[in-house]
Amino acid sequence: MTTLGIAMVGHAFMGAAHSQAWRVAPRFFDLPVQPVMAVLCGRDPGRTRAAGRLGWADAVTDWKSVLDRDDVHLVDICTPGDTHAEIAVAALEAGKHVLCEKPLANSVAEAVAMAEAAARAAERGVRAMVGFSYRRVPALALARDLVAQGRLGRVHHVRAQYLQDWIVDPAAPLSWRLDKDKAGSGALGDIGAHIVDATQFILGDTIAEVTGTMETFVPQRPVAAAHSGLSGTAVSGETGPVTVDDAALFLARFAGGALGSFEATRFANGRKNALRIEVNGSAGSLAFDFEDMNVLQFFDGTEDASVAGFRRIVVTEPQHPYVSAWWPAGHGLGYEHAFTHQAVDLVRAVAEGTDPSPSFADGLQVQRVLAAVETSAESRTWQQV
Amino acid sequence: MTTLGIAMVGHAFMGAAHSQAWRVAPRFFDLPVQPVMAVLCGRDPGRTRAAGRLGWADAVTDWKSVLDRDDVHLVDICTPGDTHAEIAVAALEAGKHVLCEKPLANSVAEAVAMAEAAARAAERGVRAMVGFSYRRVPALALARDLVAQGRLGRVHHVRAQYLQDWIVDPAAPLSWRLDKDKAGSGALGDIGAHIVDATQFILGDTIAEVTGTMETFVPQRPVAAAHSGLSGTAVSGETGPVTVDDAALFLARFAGGALGSFEATRFANGRKNALRIEVNGSAGSLAFDFEDMNVLQFFDGTEDASVAGFRRIVVTEPQHPYVSAWWPAGHGLGYEHAFTHQAVDLVRAVAEGTDPSPSFADGLQVQRVLAAVETSAESRTWQQV
Amino acid sequence: MTTLGIAMVGHAFMGAAHSQAWRVAPRFFDLPVQPVMAVLCGRDPGRTRAAGRLGWADAVTDWKSVLDRDDVHLVDICTPGDTHAEIAVAALEAGKHVLCEKPLANSVAEAVAMAEAAARAAERGVRAMVGFSYRRVPALALARDLVAQGRLGRVHHVRAQYLQDWIVDPAAPLSWRLDKDKAGSGALGDIGAHIVDATQFILGDTIAEVTGTMETFVPQRPVAAAHSGLSGTAVSGETGPVTVDDAALFLARFAGGALGSFEATRFANGRKNALRIEVNGSAGSLAFDFEDMNVLQFFDGTEDASVAGFRRIVVTEPQHPYVSAWWPAGHGLGYEHAFTHQAVDLVRAVAEGTDPSPSFADGLQVQRVLAAVETSAESRTWQQV
Amino acid sequence: MTTLGIAMVGHAFMGAAHSQAWRVAPRFFDLPVQPVMAVLCGRDPGRTRAAGRLGWADAVTDWKSVLDRDDVHLVDICTPGDTHAEIAVAALEAGKHVLCEKPLANSVAEAVAMAEAAARAAERGVRAMVGFSYRRVPALALARDLVAQGRLGRVHHVRAQYLQDWIVDPAAPLSWRLDKDKAGSGALGDIGAHIVDATQFILGDTIAEVTGTMETFVPQRPVAAAHSGLSGTAVSGETGPVTVDDAALFLARFAGGALGSFEATRFANGRKNALRIEVNGSAGSLAFDFEDMNVLQFFDGTEDASVAGFRRIVVTEPQHPYVSAWWPAGHGLGYEHAFTHQAVDLVRAVAEGTDPSPSFADGLQVQRVLAAVETSAESRTWQQV
Repeated sequence: MTTLGIAMVGHAFMGAAHSQAWRVAPRFFDLPVQPVMAVLCGRDPGRTRAAGRLGWADAVTDWKSVLDRDDVHLVDICTPGDTHAEIAVAALEAGKHVLCEKPLANSVAEAVAMAEAAARAAERGVRAMVGFSYRRVPALALARDLVAQGRLGRVHHVRAQYLQDWIVDPAAPLSWRLDKDKAGSGALGDIGAHIVDATQFILGDTIAEVTGTMETFVPQRPVAAAHSGLSGTAVSGETGPVTVDDAALFLARFAGGALGSFEATRFANGRKNALRIEVNGSAGSLAFDFEDMNVLQFFDGTEDASVAGFRRIVVTEPQHPYVSAWWPAGHGLGYEHAFTHQAVDLVRAVAEGTDPSPSFADGLQVQRVLAAVETSAESRTWQQV
Repeated sequence: MTTLGIAMVGHAFMGAAHSQAWRVAPRFFDLPVQPVMAVLCGRDPGRTRAAGRLGWADAVTDWKSVLDRDDVHLVDICTPGDTHAEIAVAALEAGKHVLCEKPLANSVAEAVAMAEAAARAAERGVRAMVGFSYRRVPALALARDLVAQGRLGRVHHVRAQYLQDWIVDPAAPLSWRLDKDKAGSGALGDIGAHIVDATQFILGDTIAEVTGTMETFVPQRPVAAAHSGLSGTAVSGETGPVTVDDAALFLARFAGGALGSFEATRFANGRKNALRIEVNGSAGSLAFDFEDMNVLQFFDGTEDASVAGFRRIVVTEPQHPYVSAWWPAGHGLGYEHAFTHQAVDLVRAVAEGTDPSPSFADGLQVQRVLAAVETSAESRTWQQV
Repeated sequence: MTTLGIAMVGHAFMGAAHSQAWRVAPRFFDLPVQPVMAVLCGRDPGRTRAAGRLGWADAVTDWKSVLDRDDVHLVDICTPGDTHAEIAVAALEAGKHVLCEKPLANSVAEAVAMAEAAARAAERGVRAMVGFSYRRVPALALARDLVAQGRLGRVHHVRAQYLQDWIVDPAAPLSWRLDKDKAGSGALGDIGAHIVDATQFILGDTIAEVTGTMETFVPQRPVAAAHSGLSGTAVSGETGPVTVDDAALFLARFAGGALGSFEATRFANGRKNALRIEVNGSAGSLAFDFEDMNVLQFFDGTEDASVAGFRRIVVTEPQHPYVSAWWPAGHGLGYEHAFTHQAVDLVRAVAEGTDPSPSFADGLQVQRVLAAVETSAESRTWQQV
Repeated sequence: MTTLGIAMVGHAFMGAAHSQAWRVAPRFFDLPVQPVMAVLCGRDPGRTRAAGRLGWADAVTDWKSVLDRDDVHLVDICTPGDTHAEIAVAALEAGKHVLCEKPLANSVAEAVAMAEAAARAAERGVRAMVGFSYRRVPALALARDLVAQGRLGRVHHVRAQYLQDWIVDPAAPLSWRLDKDKAGSGALGDIGAHIVDATQFILGDTIAEVTGTMETFVPQRPVAAAHSGLSGTAVSGETGPVTVDDAALFLARFAGGALGSFEATRFANGRKNALRIEVNGSAGSLAFDFEDMNVLQFFDGTEDASVAGFRRIVVTEPQHPYVSAWWPAGHGLGYEHAFTHQAVDLVRAVAEGTDPSPSFADGLQVQRVLAAVETSAESRTWQQV
């Protein structure tokens, strides 16, 4: 096998990012097999055709049809969360490797079914991965390495925020991301899931219990004239209910004893995509903000106090994770590069017959954290994950 | 009356800061009466004598003795929290104005008694103020002004952290600040109290309910050879228990609907005195970090998106609160200047016969928040304030 | 004509960046004609073959051969500066559009010949562009727009630095970039050229006179075992002379009266690719640092002083230059995106029959500035450009 | 001798800063003799009386009168530069120690006379110091220490800017600082002198040659209705000439081989007091900006590249220069603290019978650099210092 045929389902924001990843990965990285952008699936024939610019060799409207194709070895799921379970389980059972966008599912029950399907598939050499792409931002991969090397010592504190502001305007229209049936939850599942995964990844630890609260600041919004992505603006005269959270906050305790403070919101005016993580340990600290994504702040608490300080590590050195494939030092990467790294790692895992990470089991664990937050927001008590 | 005689009780860290304030205030600000540093009180004769450098005209070891002195018009309480109530109530009843360091007391009951004493005293023209000095950092005073002017619109989010690291080393010795009997609580009351007051001040709103958690990461520590301040290092061979929290985290809901996330810790390695506040509203946002204390970040969400961004306001213009008394633009102030501003505002209130702010009632309200956090940390449920 | 066949000469650092641009541009931007990566040219057959991963349909070792090919409409020159003039002039005379990496040439004489060839070619509808890619970083394109809109008023000051450190280690080996015959000059032409072009572009003004100085801190270096790019490390036992400048500094006066301070160096330890530009005008100021490439700092001096401050504009809004083709707000771009924008603008100019910018005449003007700096460094006097 | 009587001449901006220093120094530092604020001198009786708030025991209008007073041991000169030489030489000859504000004088000739007088006085145990106060900002003192310890290796680059904007508005009125007769020069002597001294201090090296340029952007300004300091605003209807530079830029070569780029301007819109210094050496780099005055950035180039980065050292640790006298870590200092440190060091030198630093000879050397810049700006060639 020298090529890996890809079928991608969905062609909006995530579809564009994944297409770029499949296109670019083999041009910068040595891959054991070459990904081939075989077929794009979308429900609406016209919009799927219009997505031709994404560069797929074929386009179909029925995702099930790709499961029978010999030129498809991997199904890449970029649709809203309500469809993840059905597509992923079917693909795995059809012997197709699966890359599934996060959050893994809209409920723990779905996620359990998916993780079980992934476990069965793994026995047959079929691989499954969930798309927590931020793990592959070099600065966050470096953060994980520093923690794993013990440079932080015992971790006492995690504070993580994912701050956006794209619906702070009450006139911003409804979209599928504000519809609980489609999206499962709002800020919690869309962006909160990322900081849950990223912090667990960096610490090599899991969240054991949480207490949280959620809020929908603007419960009614204009109905967009047509289905649209993040930037849909044409609106009809109607309004409709927002059925998900605008913001979710929670406190957490990790299994290893660290305290966590988490916040995900779409109402942080002026913060565009501020995924921020700070970790404090007995030997040092780390800080990251995606608005300065090529930088990791690191404090080495073992240094002499007269010269200790948070170091602004520009994570563009050849020694840094993923970086040597790209440009000379100081020539930063962008948002989509993490998707390329994700594609690279997945292709290698498939070719080498190893389990990619994060697995569906990892995705399920994140789902359990999200569910515990939702439950605690209702019960107003701490919940075990 | 042209002078205001001051008696200060306590002469450690806070005593030094207050002494500098009384000394400096009349040199930069036009004051209706001149403060006179009349007498310093300290229990230990030797150490009180050694504090002579602070510049007080007299020194005594019994604080009660100053209540009878005609040259004392105001008692400035800089002792640990366990003594605040007794001294403050006695001073107010003796007709002395009172400035009391924060937190107001070690319990709500004490704080209630103090607030009641202050209310009775106010009827006789005797004033009481609690020393939440950060309100008088120009950048935070400006923050309050911007919120009051409506520049942030409806406030959705408050996130506040007070991060220090001075006991992250398990070898750091016990001090009165780690002793519940003396200090009431640990990070919560010492530094958490500041962010409770500062955010309520900035918003012009109060915290209505909380859910929190507290932790003592290092429960046993070396016993210092002698009582010492923050920097005590000589230790005996013994260890003793830490009876307060090293860290306290809580979620909050403000009466006006804003969501808050709060964290106070002495274990944030590399963060020395990072009092950070971020506020997000429907029209704009603010951010502050005491490690860059002369700066307020402000995002004006009403601007055209192409030029909108967080502005780094260097809060050293003559238009900014308190600043015109000092230096030309760009010549920043330091930590102790807020204490000078506090002294100025208190002297003016006393002279003008108005109630200074924050009042003991304000201090009591902060105490109720702290108590609710402690209760919720035990009950693991939300608590009304 | 629906496709534009590209021949690229050179396949090292710049070749990789340009390949990515040709590959990606049509996937995100609506282009009137589709670029086709027709043929790659490299002198060394083995290394050119190895560059197959860059994704070109064909590979040849003689660049002249592509001038006769009907499937080649544009020649993209990514070789060292000593070959630019010959290739560019021949390509233009053969009726091929040309994109030429900067600096345009290794001497003013060569640049004049190239600009003349471009002028002649333009009469025949053949286009030429020089690759000052930083103009197409959205933040710098926004900077130009703000100046053009008058938001800065009369410009008083420009300070521009391009700071790298890749040869601060005296053991870093020789490469063609340290060889005057190949590279023309060192830091001056390689990175100084970028800040000359970028500042002239932002101001819409030209440098009229300069005085400068240049330095080679490490005049002898190890000889690399084989020709290599930026990261060549294997060295033979020999050393050889560095024949170019490690650093070049100059003061400048712009035709419009602004004062400039410029510095280009490869010896700024810890600065990896810090292209920094600050512009101060009577109405406002701008600041940029490529190490935070998605941000433009803007000070609006017309605002009320109490809220004025440098705004950190995250240049990822749909309103910003080039950005709407990419991701939602806050999802930053990387180094290579500017090359994609360059490809887009060139393809559009070719298709629309307009002159692309920066033209070879612009490149010549930059060359004149560089030459004036070199002359002034020798004569130790100011030089007219 | 247990007290040191001070006479201060001048009571504007610098007078206020020096008064605070004399008042505060003995309250935080252990001093071998106690400074006594004996007498204030000012030409205008009314304004001198109004300066009573500065806290001096006496006030006179004739500075010569203080030279005969037994209660005056030190003359502190805070007047414009045109009076420095006369006062300082007379004071030294009268056996009074002298602290003279910078720049030392308005011409090299005056500075020579002063340095000679200081040398003669030193033989009699009379001390002289020039007030380059920024040396005593802890972050800059730490910078010097790191260079002296070899943490930067061989210094290649110095870039220093002192950016202000207080006269960018053409309506800002004339003041003595814009009058060559009073001030000697404009931005060059007022703020450029600071970065010349500070960089020479940090490097432990001297500037050997320079080439520069100067500019007066606004040559005519309104006449202020009355003499005023920085903030004079009431203007008459007249205008008058600005006879000094608004901005001065120069390139420099240090005796030890480092290249320098210097810029001093009062037209950097939005920069209030941005004294910025960056030093790059073979082993590391430093960066400082007075707008974040409690921070020193340090890059250790000897660290592993994967964790190297500019460290944000918060210079508030007890190990840092001057800091242990003040507050706990993280409680930053302000502008005037450097003046206190200056007073401390001078008092100690006087008491210990050592020569304080910077000496008048150091001040003369700075004056020679300034003069060389002025000459080169006219001759348009490099000038030896």
